[in-house]
Amino acid sequence: MAKLAASCIVNLVLRVFVFVLLLISLILICTNTTTAKGTDVFAEQDFRFQDVIAYRYMLSSIVIGTAFVLLQLAFTIYNVIAKSEGNLLFDFYGDKIMSYVLATGAASGFGVTNDMQMLFNKLNIFLGDDFYAKSYASASLLLLATVCTAVLSVFSSYALIPKTV
Amino acid sequence: MAKLAASCIVNLVLRVFVFVLLLISLILICTNTTTAKGTDVFAEQDFRFQDVIAYRYMLSSIVIGTAFVLLQLAFTIYNVIAKSEGNLLFDFYGDKIMSYVLATGAASGFGVTNDMQMLFNKLNIFLGDDFYAKSYASASLLLLATVCTAVLSVFSSYALIPKTV
Repeated sequence: MAKLAASCIVNLVLRVFVFVLLLISLILICTNTTTAKGTDVFAEQDFRFQDVIAYRYMLSSIVIGTAFVLLQLAFTIYNVIAKSEGNLLFDFYGDKIMSYVLATGAASGFGVTNDMQMLFNKLNIFLGDDFYAKSYASASLLLLATVCTAVLSVFSSYALIPKTV
Repeated sequence: MAKLAASCIVNLVLRVFVFVLLLISLILICTNTTTAKGTDVFAEQDFRFQDVIAYRYMLSSIVIGTAFVLLQLAFTIYNVIAKSEGNLLFDFYGDKIMSYVLATGAASGFGVTNDMQMLFNKLNIFLGDDFYAKSYASASLLLLATVCTAVLSVFSSYALIPKTV
């Protein structure tokens, strides 16, 4: 029973950490706005993160991830208090799918930032270093959250193995 | 024993399918070359897939995935013949990590293609529809391979549960 509670608390700490990472990542990407210089295509208004579809996907993955981690946090707290194992299959598939959602979000964010910076610099369009830096920061935090969720996914796979064996 | 062999054969078929998908994806992305119209920045030579860093990452993930799936194919064939279970932990972590590698490759490919097409069209730079279509096709096949690898990863998680229970 003590072992069960300990693994629940590790789960809890990791999920709180994921939640904090996703929250900072969300704030960073949502506040990412700049002015494009060197072209009149984007001159009428600010160049915002919404102008890049990959960032919209990244935002979606962060929002879905945050909602899921909050749900899982509630379940984990309940399980710690009730000293129950919870729904192991829900954890298993949930963590697995969520880690893919976060991984693809981070990958599309990194991919598009890197190439946009390179191609725009070649074309003499300047968005300012802050825009790229904030995008990278947001994607990096999302990547860290992905790694934590992948670790949680390994835990929830092992949790399927009956304790009596 | 019959049940063990059957699950091995399902594994084998899925891995052969992943190998074929990765191979076609590899050929599509490697042969993706076009000429940029509307700008003189890329005019000196062809616009190749190597000019986009996200495609290079995609290529790396395909190559790593192909090498891994070939290794796993050899192991699975050996296990079917020897009627052994193989190294369950290697399968578990291998499939898990590989599915993340393929998922991030596909996501960066999709993300960059979508936004490059949109931004380049806005800037009146035309790479030709074939270039984008081939990139999408390659990323789609990679995504399908990711889904298959994720299913294999679920199988190899379940394989950790002792059969006697």
